[in-house]
Amino acid sequence: MSGIATLKVGDSVDQYLLIKQSTKGVTTMGKPFMTLILQDKSGSIEAKLWDAGEEQVRLYPAGIVVHIGGEIQDYRGKLQLRIKQIRPLRPDETIGVEDLIQSSETPKEQLYEEFSQYFFEIKNPNISRITRHIVRKFQEQLMTFPAATKNHHEYASGLLEHETSMLRLAKSICDLYPTLNRDLLYAGVILHDIGKVIELSGPISTVYTAKGNLLGHINIMVSEIEKAAAELEIDGEEVMLLEHMVLSHHGKEEYGSPKKPMLQEAEMLFYIDNIDAKMNMLKRALSKTEPGEFTERLFALDNRSFYNPTI
Amino acid sequence: MSGIATLKVGDSVDQYLLIKQSTKGVTTMGKPFMTLILQDKSGSIEAKLWDAGEEQVRLYPAGIVVHIGGEIQDYRGKLQLRIKQIRPLRPDETIGVEDLIQSSETPKEQLYEEFSQYFFEIKNPNISRITRHIVRKFQEQLMTFPAATKNHHEYASGLLEHETSMLRLAKSICDLYPTLNRDLLYAGVILHDIGKVIELSGPISTVYTAKGNLLGHINIMVSEIEKAAAELEIDGEEVMLLEHMVLSHHGKEEYGSPKKPMLQEAEMLFYIDNIDAKMNMLKRALSKTEPGEFTERLFALDNRSFYNPTI
Amino acid sequence: MSGIATLKVGDSVDQYLLIKQSTKGVTTMGKPFMTLILQDKSGSIEAKLWDAGEEQVRLYPAGIVVHIGGEIQDYRGKLQLRIKQIRPLRPDETIGVEDLIQSSETPKEQLYEEFSQYFFEIKNPNISRITRHIVRKFQEQLMTFPAATKNHHEYASGLLEHETSMLRLAKSICDLYPTLNRDLLYAGVILHDIGKVIELSGPISTVYTAKGNLLGHINIMVSEIEKAAAELEIDGEEVMLLEHMVLSHHGKEEYGSPKKPMLQEAEMLFYIDNIDAKMNMLKRALSKTEPGEFTERLFALDNRSFYNPTI
Amino acid sequence: MSGIATLKVGDSVDQYLLIKQSTKGVTTMGKPFMTLILQDKSGSIEAKLWDAGEEQVRLYPAGIVVHIGGEIQDYRGKLQLRIKQIRPLRPDETIGVEDLIQSSETPKEQLYEEFSQYFFEIKNPNISRITRHIVRKFQEQLMTFPAATKNHHEYASGLLEHETSMLRLAKSICDLYPTLNRDLLYAGVILHDIGKVIELSGPISTVYTAKGNLLGHINIMVSEIEKAAAELEIDGEEVMLLEHMVLSHHGKEEYGSPKKPMLQEAEMLFYIDNIDAKMNMLKRALSKTEPGEFTERLFALDNRSFYNPTI
Amino acid sequence: MSGIATLKVGDSVDQYLLIKQSTKGVTTMGKPFMTLILQDKSGSIEAKLWDAGEEQVRLYPAGIVVHIGGEIQDYRGKLQLRIKQIRPLRPDETIGVEDLIQSSETPKEQLYEEFSQYFFEIKNPNISRITRHIVRKFQEQLMTFPAATKNHHEYASGLLEHETSMLRLAKSICDLYPTLNRDLLYAGVILHDIGKVIELSGPISTVYTAKGNLLGHINIMVSEIEKAAAELEIDGEEVMLLEHMVLSHHGKEEYGSPKKPMLQEAEMLFYIDNIDAKMNMLKRALSKTEPGEFTERLFALDNRSFYNPTI
Amino acid sequence: MSGIATLKVGDSVDQYLLIKQSTKGVTTMGKPFMTLILQDKSGSIEAKLWDAGEEQVRLYPAGIVVHIGGEIQDYRGKLQLRIKQIRPLRPDETIGVEDLIQSSETPKEQLYEEFSQYFFEIKNPNISRITRHIVRKFQEQLMTFPAATKNHHEYASGLLEHETSMLRLAKSICDLYPTLNRDLLYAGVILHDIGKVIELSGPISTVYTAKGNLLGHINIMVSEIEKAAAELEIDGEEVMLLEHMVLSHHGKEEYGSPKKPMLQEAEMLFYIDNIDAKMNMLKRALSKTEPGEFTERLFALDNRSFYNPTI
Repeated sequence: MSGIATLKVGDSVDQYLLIKQSTKGVTTMGKPFMTLILQDKSGSIEAKLWDAGEEQVRLYPAGIVVHIGGEIQDYRGKLQLRIKQIRPLRPDETIGVEDLIQSSETPKEQLYEEFSQYFFEIKNPNISRITRHIVRKFQEQLMTFPAATKNHHEYASGLLEHETSMLRLAKSICDLYPTLNRDLLYAGVILHDIGKVIELSGPISTVYTAKGNLLGHINIMVSEIEKAAAELEIDGEEVMLLEHMVLSHHGKEEYGSPKKPMLQEAEMLFYIDNIDAKMNMLKRALSKTEPGEFTERLFALDNRSFYNPTI
Repeated sequence: MSGIATLKVGDSVDQYLLIKQSTKGVTTMGKPFMTLILQDKSGSIEAKLWDAGEEQVRLYPAGIVVHIGGEIQDYRGKLQLRIKQIRPLRPDETIGVEDLIQSSETPKEQLYEEFSQYFFEIKNPNISRITRHIVRKFQEQLMTFPAATKNHHEYASGLLEHETSMLRLAKSICDLYPTLNRDLLYAGVILHDIGKVIELSGPISTVYTAKGNLLGHINIMVSEIEKAAAELEIDGEEVMLLEHMVLSHHGKEEYGSPKKPMLQEAEMLFYIDNIDAKMNMLKRALSKTEPGEFTERLFALDNRSFYNPTI
Repeated sequence: MSGIATLKVGDSVDQYLLIKQSTKGVTTMGKPFMTLILQDKSGSIEAKLWDAGEEQVRLYPAGIVVHIGGEIQDYRGKLQLRIKQIRPLRPDETIGVEDLIQSSETPKEQLYEEFSQYFFEIKNPNISRITRHIVRKFQEQLMTFPAATKNHHEYASGLLEHETSMLRLAKSICDLYPTLNRDLLYAGVILHDIGKVIELSGPISTVYTAKGNLLGHINIMVSEIEKAAAELEIDGEEVMLLEHMVLSHHGKEEYGSPKKPMLQEAEMLFYIDNIDAKMNMLKRALSKTEPGEFTERLFALDNRSFYNPTI
Repeated sequence: MSGIATLKVGDSVDQYLLIKQSTKGVTTMGKPFMTLILQDKSGSIEAKLWDAGEEQVRLYPAGIVVHIGGEIQDYRGKLQLRIKQIRPLRPDETIGVEDLIQSSETPKEQLYEEFSQYFFEIKNPNISRITRHIVRKFQEQLMTFPAATKNHHEYASGLLEHETSMLRLAKSICDLYPTLNRDLLYAGVILHDIGKVIELSGPISTVYTAKGNLLGHINIMVSEIEKAAAELEIDGEEVMLLEHMVLSHHGKEEYGSPKKPMLQEAEMLFYIDNIDAKMNMLKRALSKTEPGEFTERLFALDNRSFYNPTI
Repeated sequence: MSGIATLKVGDSVDQYLLIKQSTKGVTTMGKPFMTLILQDKSGSIEAKLWDAGEEQVRLYPAGIVVHIGGEIQDYRGKLQLRIKQIRPLRPDETIGVEDLIQSSETPKEQLYEEFSQYFFEIKNPNISRITRHIVRKFQEQLMTFPAATKNHHEYASGLLEHETSMLRLAKSICDLYPTLNRDLLYAGVILHDIGKVIELSGPISTVYTAKGNLLGHINIMVSEIEKAAAELEIDGEEVMLLEHMVLSHHGKEEYGSPKKPMLQEAEMLFYIDNIDAKMNMLKRALSKTEPGEFTERLFALDNRSFYNPTI
Repeated sequence: MSGIATLKVGDSVDQYLLIKQSTKGVTTMGKPFMTLILQDKSGSIEAKLWDAGEEQVRLYPAGIVVHIGGEIQDYRGKLQLRIKQIRPLRPDETIGVEDLIQSSETPKEQLYEEFSQYFFEIKNPNISRITRHIVRKFQEQLMTFPAATKNHHEYASGLLEHETSMLRLAKSICDLYPTLNRDLLYAGVILHDIGKVIELSGPISTVYTAKGNLLGHINIMVSEIEKAAAELEIDGEEVMLLEHMVLSHHGKEEYGSPKKPMLQEAEMLFYIDNIDAKMNMLKRALSKTEPGEFTERLFALDNRSFYNPTI
């Protein structure tokens, strides 16, 4: 079975798919229909279900796995799935939501094992204790949350993958620039985005929570560090330094950091975060682009198109 | 005794003054001298102490009250005090620092009494408890701190004066626009700037603390609200709302608010803060400007000069 | 009869409606139809009139009141009125345009009475005479014009409602900050937007006039003040001050004010205008939003969504 | 006699000079002195008058012509005139202020004659009448005012020179792009800057007037057009068009035009104004720069330095 | 035969047209169709070809001339051609692509003759040789390329028309401002945009080439000047000056010039380029606009609408 | 002998120093003196030479090594060297300019050896040949030039040090993100700044050349690549890719790159360049800052001060 996002016009479809979004509509002639966004691990596609009455609306809400037969066609330059047959799962079918959502390439358990190794390199006891305390508190969500709703690492375990990849880069940079405080930089990488497990709703149909909208993952994490320090009865300068690392990691005010980086480690955290996010986006965009062609415009990269060389 | 900042060229000086800043220098001819910034309640003036040896440097550091005899002269278009006689206080002289620093026009006790009345109008128990808890915690500093190092309310008890004046305006606006939640707006006014008692060093020779530079009064207060809620075991939506009020009160990212206002009360808090700060600056700048003339350029008002009408 | 903008999918319609806009079209199959925007006091809705020939085009232009029978349905996520029956008014039906357009909540006569009271508080005779002269000249339009084509107070008598509400706020602010010149601020509020009666086309299907586009309400009013002063033979500084109040009320160059405010009263006018416009937008947006939800994005508020608290 | 601005270090001075600015000061040693800015037609230079008592202050205010003997020296990288001898004019000396201020290269009478020829090419009677009316009203000042306080055409009759030069360019452009309305463009050139005769104080020691600061030459002229039309009882579209030409001639809001150009002639006026102002600045800056060198930074040209080629 | 872009709803069509773009689609009912953009010298129009099978897709690709019978209709406010009859050319029909694409009003040979005259006015031998060398190298493309893909001179020979028109304006400006170096300015005009013959794909269905996207016409031409100088063994300052003229002609960094103009001739080139491009856009936009009306919004003119006066 | 930049007030000086800048002046009393900027490997200091006649001016121009006796003093808050004795070198003294200018910590020969190793990892023959060709052409200057006039690597061999350090980082990043083309990234690092050997004047008293100002190192290098390819008869896509790498390495138009990065390797080059430049600045600024203190404001880091932690 090929992934739904890899098919071409004319290919036929006969597989399980997760309904990611489900909306009712009415044609210009007044006939009711449904628009479904259907996904598997390879990505998602839009589909129309014509002549959809109340029964269909009840049977096919978002979040449900269904079995679909149909064909891929072109609609105004975009691929669309033409549904010929659709049915809910039978009781004996065991396919689950987790089998149909995108996730990190490396299994989350393996990522977490690598991620954990970096704790052993943190020597400062205050930094170590605060960081471990917070990772333990949110460990379950950290294993499965995406790092964003779109753009980069926007899939299950994307957050863990992003942070682990950043730790590798942080290690290289500390080796090359030995004046950097390794403890601060590692802890900064680990803590900087964990607030996303409160800012976002979870790995499926990810949206911003009200708290995410009103406070943001940066402030949520600063408060968590403050509370961890209080609970652990730590009040050294490390608390302020870690809070500043998180606070400033978007680099400037316009990007949501109320303070620009004022520690050399904070400046590096900003760069490491950017490099890893951009490489994640570029890798995927270029993998879908023929040599000699440009990618589609990438919104999170200033709306640029990138060229895939022929050499 | 007229205030030091009200004198003109040729006026003679014979009064107590506080040394606000003290710096050593050397003339182009190699002679040592000291530059002193001297202040009383009316403001401050620069002075040169010629032929100042080690003895003088020891006797006249910043923060000390001295008695000065001298004369006001013009030096490159700015007034300067020419010191003819200077001496430290004698043991029997009782003048103190507090007699020589600028402070709010209204006595701080009277301001606090008015300020306290607004608590009675807050009906929501969660909002009321968190707000009272934080005010109690920082009450002592709130009585004496300025609201800023320069620009507006930059004198002793300026913070309390600013917040009390804002509460008056908040009351009027709630009366005129009844859809506003009075509890949220009052609590937002009260909490929004209290973090300054950690961001700034105190009422004399005010500077930013390291924590002030690295975290800022906005984030300091958000963490305080979080800790107050934890201590008081409150976890209703009010916590998030109060945190957002504080977080967004600078109005946009470029001004240091990581989130723009997303509550109508937060939007109003931004306006009330601006109006009160600007009226404080304009009142003082215009009081020093003749009718038919323009004020000096006011940096915090986009470097504008304001006109004092003749009508 | 409920308002057209309050109905839900499936509700039937049987009422008078004003045709706000009328456009001819042709289906993908080549059949002619008409798209009508229909409104009553509650708001407006789009409708399709299928198989609309030349007769229909002639009968149903914009600006006409019709009687409609039909049903509300969902079309691509937006409500649409499906017309089952439509007819022009019969000679004996007395419903008029004014019964079907949105207007200020408070009757315009009552608003004008309140508005007029503020003249009595203006003591300066030059300011008083110029202001009265201009209000008299444009009184008729002032009674009915909206304050804008969209965003805030964009309904009949919206201009008068906006100015009256601003006068109330100006009064409070003058009481709290007594260094403000009440005459200047009141006159500034009164005059600042009256140029809109030339900039805009009127209370129905409001658009910008050519003069509005090429000169703008700010410059139109400055010229009116100049002419009023000439006619009344007034040449005191008041003329220049009033012109500056109007000229600078958008606050900065990018917003269409060729001069930034350089009078403290002009600075306050800018704030008062903003507060009143924003409260008008927020009140309406939040009234359509459930507690715990965010409003739709509000373009004139930097495209922000606002949260409606549950407390 | 060479001009004062053409002298080099070591040259001696023995000539009449106009005191442009006069300020009292006191040395670091407490001795009184005066700083004079002295000028002739070639430019200006700073001078110090040491040991200047009350008598000197009385004798040498700004606006007075004096006779000076002295020498040019270098003071911190800038040229300075060292005064050895200074005296007021004797009754029999007939040199006047007008002999010592910079002015247009071409005599103002000759400029005005050329300027006047362009009126004959304006065919539209309304445009012609309004333009002539305003030029007549301000003719006297137009003959002598500068076009600015600094940067370009900042000398006596600079305004007339600027407008005449622009008319020549406007003529060429109308010849090359015949869809342009020659009447509108000529009238726009003529009227666009005449408001400067109210915005500025005059040809000597030019500063902004209060009205200039609060209203600006653009709005002043729009009101003048409005009044001229009223007086001449003209109310055709021409009035609006001329007002728009003046209103938009700074090209965008940030530059003080409340409306961007919306007539093709207004767009061209913006370009013609820019070209002529910049050529005036560049001609003078490059004339003082050796081939192979860069000019000093030119503030009004985005702080750029321009290169003077060796070819 | 009227041009396709001048027809109105209801007009019938019976003429040769060039297929500019050809896309397959499928209706909401699943039927295949084609969308064609068809053009002649007057402009282009969209058309739908219903029930288009594989045969049609094969017969009607972009770049082919066809004969069409049909009718103009309105589709959602835009004109559309309803195809009733379509057929490929017969062998005996001699109409070619060049008969159906837009091109400069003046024939390209006549433009080139005028363009060539300006070479005779360039006196500096280095400038003359480099300029002639490059024009000869790209002469063929210069005769036919457009100056852009859209906005201005975006038709066959538009590049040559633009440069020739700019040379006329450069001549006038050099006459009026004699300190300008005529050789530099003429050569700058001639060379500044020739890089477009590599940046763009050609006169038909013009798009950016990969090299155009990655390097841009500015850098392409700078390298060409460098190579021409090497080939001609010229190494005077003229090489650097010509490279700077080309490099800086977009005026500032944001517009793609890595250096702002630092020669007075470079500054003028920027203005001349702008004036000619804008007059080209405005002439065409205003020719389609009734007196008393505004043009559609013009993207390349800051999205402004321009007014067509009634006088 | 301690370095001149490490001394404190009161320390005496008795050493060789290089005159970096030499300027004549005159005191307020009219006495001639010279201002000298004197340097050794540790940095530079200002000095005054009083009563300096023509003889002194002749003896002590910039670029000369002298022997100085004197004392460090404070002048208006900055250190200054008070010269008590100064003399030119005697014929037998062998100290040279290279002994007194700052240079990279690692010897340039060692840097070059490391730098050269990276060539062996470039596999693509076209990229390899072009890169080697250009490095050979400019090898001599590459060994000694700084990377800038100020801010980062602004000392002898700074350019080579910067590029070598960037190559180390590029290697790490290619290891972590294997989709990157190592050849392109290495060649981009090597070529990106070599144009500085034409843009700047050399390792001593570094200033911009005229060509540097008018064309910039980016365009200079793009032309060099073009010429190298022509000479080597290479015309594959590699030429365009290398040119784009150099062209876009400042990241955006405002920073002098006429094209934003459109290759993933170009995007990474931008980051690597930034990281290495910033670490160079931060390392030096923090090394001069006590723990618990902030650095001075760093202009090239958005004018930020950085905090040196106490942990």
